Amino acid sequence: MKDGLYTAPQRDMQFALYEVLDVETELGRRAGGAPMDRETLDQILEGADRLCHGVLAPLNASGDREGCRLEGHEVRTPAGFGQAYRAYTEGGWSGLCASEEHGGQALPTVASAIVGEMLGGSNISFALYPRLSEGAYRCIRANATPELQAVYGPKLASGEWTGTMCLTEAQAGTDLGLLRTKAVPDGDGAYRISGGKIFISSGEHDLAPNIVHMVLARLPDAPAGTRGISLFLVPKFLPDAEGRPGERNGVYCDAIEHKLGLHANATCVLRFEQARGYLVGEANKGLAAMFVMMNSARLGTGAQALGLTETALQKSLAYAAERLQSRAPGQERAVTRADPILLQPDVRRMLLTQQAWAQGARMFLYWLALQIDAEQHASDPAERDRAGGLLSLLTPVAKAFVSDNAVESVNLAMQVHGGSGYIVESGIEQTLRDVRILPIYEGTNGVQAHDLLARKVLADEGGRLGQLLTLARAQADAAEAAGAGAEFGAPLRELAGRIEEAVPRLAALAAGDPAQVGASSTDFLRIVGHLVYGYFWSRAAQAAWTRLPEGDPLRAEKLATARFYFEHLFPETEMRLRRLFVPAERYTNPCALAM
Amino acid sequence: MKDGLYTAPQRDMQFALYEVLDVETELGRRAGGAPMDRETLDQILEGADRLCHGVLAPLNASGDREGCRLEGHEVRTPAGFGQAYRAYTEGGWSGLCASEEHGGQALPTVASAIVGEMLGGSNISFALYPRLSEGAYRCIRANATPELQAVYGPKLASGEWTGTMCLTEAQAGTDLGLLRTKAVPDGDGAYRISGGKIFISSGEHDLAPNIVHMVLARLPDAPAGTRGISLFLVPKFLPDAEGRPGERNGVYCDAIEHKLGLHANATCVLRFEQARGYLVGEANKGLAAMFVMMNSARLGTGAQALGLTETALQKSLAYAAERLQSRAPGQERAVTRADPILLQPDVRRMLLTQQAWAQGARMFLYWLALQIDAEQHASDPAERDRAGGLLSLLTPVAKAFVSDNAVESVNLAMQVHGGSGYIVESGIEQTLRDVRILPIYEGTNGVQAHDLLARKVLADEGGRLGQLLTLARAQADAAEAAGAGAEFGAPLRELAGRIEEAVPRLAALAAGDPAQVGASSTDFLRIVGHLVYGYFWSRAAQAAWTRLPEGDPLRAEKLATARFYFEHLFPETEMRLRRLFVPAERYTNPCALAM
Repeated sequence: MKDGLYTAPQRDMQFALYEVLDVETELGRRAGGAPMDRETLDQILEGADRLCHGVLAPLNASGDREGCRLEGHEVRTPAGFGQAYRAYTEGGWSGLCASEEHGGQALPTVASAIVGEMLGGSNISFALYPRLSEGAYRCIRANATPELQAVYGPKLASGEWTGTMCLTEAQAGTDLGLLRTKAVPDGDGAYRISGGKIFISSGEHDLAPNIVHMVLARLPDAPAGTRGISLFLVPKFLPDAEGRPGERNGVYCDAIEHKLGLHANATCVLRFEQARGYLVGEANKGLAAMFVMMNSARLGTGAQALGLTETALQKSLAYAAERLQSRAPGQERAVTRADPILLQPDVRRMLLTQQAWAQGARMFLYWLALQIDAEQHASDPAERDRAGGLLSLLTPVAKAFVSDNAVESVNLAMQVHGGSGYIVESGIEQTLRDVRILPIYEGTNGVQAHDLLARKVLADEGGRLGQLLTLARAQADAAEAAGAGAEFGAPLRELAGRIEEAVPRLAALAAGDPAQVGASSTDFLRIVGHLVYGYFWSRAAQAAWTRLPEGDPLRAEKLATARFYFEHLFPETEMRLRRLFVPAERYTNPCALAM
Repeated sequence: MKDGLYTAPQRDMQFALYEVLDVETELGRRAGGAPMDRETLDQILEGADRLCHGVLAPLNASGDREGCRLEGHEVRTPAGFGQAYRAYTEGGWSGLCASEEHGGQALPTVASAIVGEMLGGSNISFALYPRLSEGAYRCIRANATPELQAVYGPKLASGEWTGTMCLTEAQAGTDLGLLRTKAVPDGDGAYRISGGKIFISSGEHDLAPNIVHMVLARLPDAPAGTRGISLFLVPKFLPDAEGRPGERNGVYCDAIEHKLGLHANATCVLRFEQARGYLVGEANKGLAAMFVMMNSARLGTGAQALGLTETALQKSLAYAAERLQSRAPGQERAVTRADPILLQPDVRRMLLTQQAWAQGARMFLYWLALQIDAEQHASDPAERDRAGGLLSLLTPVAKAFVSDNAVESVNLAMQVHGGSGYIVESGIEQTLRDVRILPIYEGTNGVQAHDLLARKVLADEGGRLGQLLTLARAQADAAEAAGAGAEFGAPLRELAGRIEEAVPRLAALAAGDPAQVGASSTDFLRIVGHLVYGYFWSRAAQAAWTRLPEGDPLRAEKLATARFYFEHLFPETEMRLRRLFVPAERYTNPCALAM
């Protein structure tokens, strides 16, 4: 980042893809889907970096300063965003993983994970415009009628139109069972949607001539709660016979929010007024249909978190290399009066922490993308099952663990900057404002933790978790066998054992007191997160040991970062395991908390 | 906070003052200084709360929105700040602890700690205008000639003029040895100061007719580095014969910074151009003289951090009590469809964490304020020594531990708010922006950690630390003897033992590799912080047990929060102790970190 702008860490991405994950072999094993060779992937890395570094990153600060404006019911995005969006769609970045029948390139999902990371790192406000389209596209492809797919699939795949995800209402956030938006059959096979939605990212903008809203609403006879929610597709403009934007539909942006960050993305208050909509999936099964989009958004949040962690690392590393203050310990050069603060161990601690979080997340998220494809395309049904199980188990971890670590990383990056980090011109203060949405949106991290412990582990009697424990133990063996050392095996094996013991104990506590799940879930998620990162840092150490030549500086770097991870970050599990079993009744504080 | 504005938690302040710290007895034991009875202290609590809740808190959001403006070289503070500052000085809040000879009230320092907390909690941008005056006043009283004291003492004590602290230059932040501002004798006993300073809080404003800058600069013959720094008093206007602002001095505000937060406080770039200044203390011993002010500012930062932690707790508690989402575990009421999220264990975890940090900090900081007075006024010289030792040992802990916990607390408070926390109108996003300066200014928290381990512990061969360990062990015995339970004694005793063992081991490592101090210092500070909070939560449990009637809900609340602290937060020490001895060489990452 010689120019101070985000640059994709292509070498580290390649290390994750080729040395650690062996994606060519991995993708070769699946039936169906386009093949993916190293050359194609490398072209994606280079091309996406050119777009993100060259076009999107330069708009990040200006977009933040200018923000979005609401004129009437229309949103104006900041200067340059329209042109950038054209560059994005014309470059073919929109349909990367879309089906060929919809005009997409049908590339493996890992391509989308890579691009999502770069978009998030270079300009997260921008990223939210096209990336929600990808979720809407996946949702339509999985759930909508062939007629709807034929009209909307190609438009979303090409990025000609964009998508949104309309769940939240003022009284219904985490608890979607409380939502009130109504859908009434119009006698014509379609529906009339009425109600108000809030916090709709990219809900209105001037980047595309049409916006496709995916809206949760209730049919007239719907049961109360989450079992009475249906999913509707509601376009801003109703397509005419040629599929072009025709009649204006009854959906209006009444306000955009003033937020801590994400200034260049319009977070909209949307009013649906007898808007024409089309049922997607079955009536009253809207939540299940929407979960395709929600899971995509949760993995997308992980990718954004990784991107912002990388940005923070790059910014603080550059600052630390330039900023001269004090003599570093052991430095005795007579020429200078002060050394770069990069040589201070406490500064290195902050940089290495960011690096271990970023690179750990990278291996994890690329691997998860491989599971998405394996679930659909692996030739062995058992492998499809296993991939699907791991994916559903680890989606909340990808959302919550990666985003919490991203917040910590950006905080550390600001701290490395000292006083200048607090100043707008440093750029890191924007990163700090932008990153803070990640633990909140797409289901708060507390909701993710509950999902993991209650639904993915306890309700499953540890079945999917067992797959992960098996992977971790096999890796512990492999690292030791490869000669990479017990230090990259033993801690992983030990933690797997402690998690295995913990689950029945938590299940027993939860059977006695249903509040125990919520009391233990956040600590549990952090522990599982470390099992995952421990697994990948062990793989990284093994890959460095076995696949990189001895003189390659990356080999030494990877081994050092893996060691730092295990010695410095992994011990968080000690703290978490200590408090995992604190009984839920202890969380009842009788006075102040009852107000 | 029925109106959503910060209110001083008077009952908890009283619990800390009377039930835990027994301030009346404590202050009664010192010779000199005004007496302080409970009635006086209660009046201060009420009066300061009236000012902070009624006048300052309502200006917090508007001040943030409006910010400061620079017109020419003059700063305009936001609407209402001038009137609020008059209310502050006219209420006598400025001279609370100033000497009677300077027109002050000579109250014990704990009064100032209480007011500092409330100012920080209600409006930290405002707080920085008067609070730096207090530091400047203390610095002048300790170091300046009687002539300077006679002119400037009463003005600063009354708040008629305000003070600043001018240390940082563009190339000299943490490393003050690099500073270049020059001071040349003018032949008249005074000096001419020339140079540029940055990051000067309250460096220019329209609240008072004069500003007294405390400026570090170099005399012509000064040795290089920190041994060549002298301290000068440089008024914005030179006082005339009657002590009124006369001739304009050569100090100009050329710019104010655009910052993440603290928008209503002017962070100034100051240019000194042959400005007339007066030496304070001895030539070339400016850093020692300035340390009076720096220590005052560090404790002040702790007080601000406590105030903002309390604000965050109040905001998120109120939100959690009102926000209805989902059924809470174990709640089966048929009337409502959703319960307040306050009943969710994961939300309670976030609230209890804030509460334990806030109330732990409160006991700690009030107690430190008692040490300041004991150091000066205790009748027993050994007690004066002991108080001074503990004060110098724990000043970096008060700055860094309390402010890091404050950042965590505000993060949790935002998380409790979910999506609405990210919106400006929630107010918590301002708190998040404001609080983030605390780990940075007045010496970054990394600098504090280094100060603690290198200077206050290793250079002292653990002498001062020994005093703290003795206190902790005595408290462990007392809690158990009082019947408050082994749970409030055993962990404290154990940690004291582990710290005692750690120090010689760290000393040996540091003797072999000077980088070890920086590699271990942040973890070490967090561990010592927990020894301190463990000590006070143990005292709180004991006080609740022995001094509050059984039916008092505060008794149950204090015991529950103490238990939460020991079970949930104290285990951080497990993680920190694990990595305390990681050799510094592990922080050398050969490739990326060398760019």
